[in-house]
Amino acid sequence: MRITIIGSGNVATHLAAAFKNAGHAIVQVYSRDLQHASLLAYHVRANAIDNLDEIDPETDLFVIAVKDDAIETVTAALAKYQKLMVHTSGATSLQTLLAHTENAGVFYPLQTFSKTKEVDFNTVPVCIEGGNEEITSILNVLAYTITQNVYRINSDERRTLHLAAVFACNFPNYLYYLSQQLLAEKQLPFDLLRPLILETAQKVQEHLPADVQTGPAIRNDEKTMGNHLQQLALNPQLQVLYELLSQGIIKMDKAG
Amino acid sequence: MRITIIGSGNVATHLAAAFKNAGHAIVQVYSRDLQHASLLAYHVRANAIDNLDEIDPETDLFVIAVKDDAIETVTAALAKYQKLMVHTSGATSLQTLLAHTENAGVFYPLQTFSKTKEVDFNTVPVCIEGGNEEITSILNVLAYTITQNVYRINSDERRTLHLAAVFACNFPNYLYYLSQQLLAEKQLPFDLLRPLILETAQKVQEHLPADVQTGPAIRNDEKTMGNHLQQLALNPQLQVLYELLSQGIIKMDKAG
Repeated sequence: MRITIIGSGNVATHLAAAFKNAGHAIVQVYSRDLQHASLLAYHVRANAIDNLDEIDPETDLFVIAVKDDAIETVTAALAKYQKLMVHTSGATSLQTLLAHTENAGVFYPLQTFSKTKEVDFNTVPVCIEGGNEEITSILNVLAYTITQNVYRINSDERRTLHLAAVFACNFPNYLYYLSQQLLAEKQLPFDLLRPLILETAQKVQEHLPADVQTGPAIRNDEKTMGNHLQQLALNPQLQVLYELLSQGIIKMDKAG
Repeated sequence: MRITIIGSGNVATHLAAAFKNAGHAIVQVYSRDLQHASLLAYHVRANAIDNLDEIDPETDLFVIAVKDDAIETVTAALAKYQKLMVHTSGATSLQTLLAHTENAGVFYPLQTFSKTKEVDFNTVPVCIEGGNEEITSILNVLAYTITQNVYRINSDERRTLHLAAVFACNFPNYLYYLSQQLLAEKQLPFDLLRPLILETAQKVQEHLPADVQTGPAIRNDEKTMGNHLQQLALNPQLQVLYELLSQGIIKMDKAG
């Protein structure tokens, strides 16, 4: 396919590279910042533009990978080309595009992307939704060119998925941060915890979390929990968090 | 070394196997349950006992890998052999052993062990502490026979480490569980989130958590957070947790 990338952030960068690697042609990369557009365009051998008036209409697909707030404006500007348009946002309904064009869908890669770290796109789940069955089929074929994991997910399901992803990714990373801060107070290196963090994530690749829960709360080990709360005496916010999470674990449904 | 394993749980099992693989001789495996002792003893070619009166005194080291509550009783029973004794607990002070024998230390592998999953012990951090410098040296040499990551950690530091490990492992696993529950309500498969969970843990192997924090809270994206809280309307406990974690992320010290 001939694909135009709107945006130059993490999702735009990783998607553009994945499409390019799969043999698609990237026509243009648009960013409000021409330097950002140029950097990505260079990597995927496309033209960089910083003005939507310079859009090349000879494309099959606009991939709108901009901030959620900007999706609507960009869609409105691109609708006149009457080409297939997808956004890549977990938190935005398909309806946002359909308000401007029927030829619309969602192409949501469910992964945390950083510019500094390569991702093996082949294992990234891509959630697709089309404005009609034909569009869904096109997106399905396109998605399978870059990953093995393609899911048809409607806007309501994607809302749930986006929320669940916060619990699965953003919040655990914050807990890693808290653990690192606790160590830092005693000048202990974060390297001590890194293998534990990785193993914890690896365990749930094959098991359900409820089946591999460990620690004082799941044993209802009140003595250890009491000791931990005492250690957090100077940090009442962490105490509240510790209590809340531990109470949740104690009540966990083992049936998962 | 000739090593006697007291206990047959996850830590006992993984440590015994690591010692055996490194060429040490496992003399006996003790468990209150002879079947458990026999199963582990079979794997490491040792004798199984379920009675501490049957201890073979021809050993160099007792590795006490029993529940925290039982460490003191076992130590008291084994003190008469006047052999080096270590416990493997993150939550127990060295003092617990020193009350019964001077020849004591701690050998704490910082990892989450499951019987169903092999662990590459070579990357597991082992935290050692000896009752005196000679013991620490012995434990240091012993630890390096099974892992590359050996740390000298005193009892006060180990207390912090144990607490931090709850934040780095037990609590994230509970958040995985919550994310899986959110998906299950819409019959969405947990496989959707597994790559995200793994990538999140892999990111902090090379970066600090503060440098790779993503999600609506770190962007202070109030609209998305508002939507998420609304989705949790029927689950006030998850709302509180969401608020607490998001507020923490908003206040995160980017300097790490």
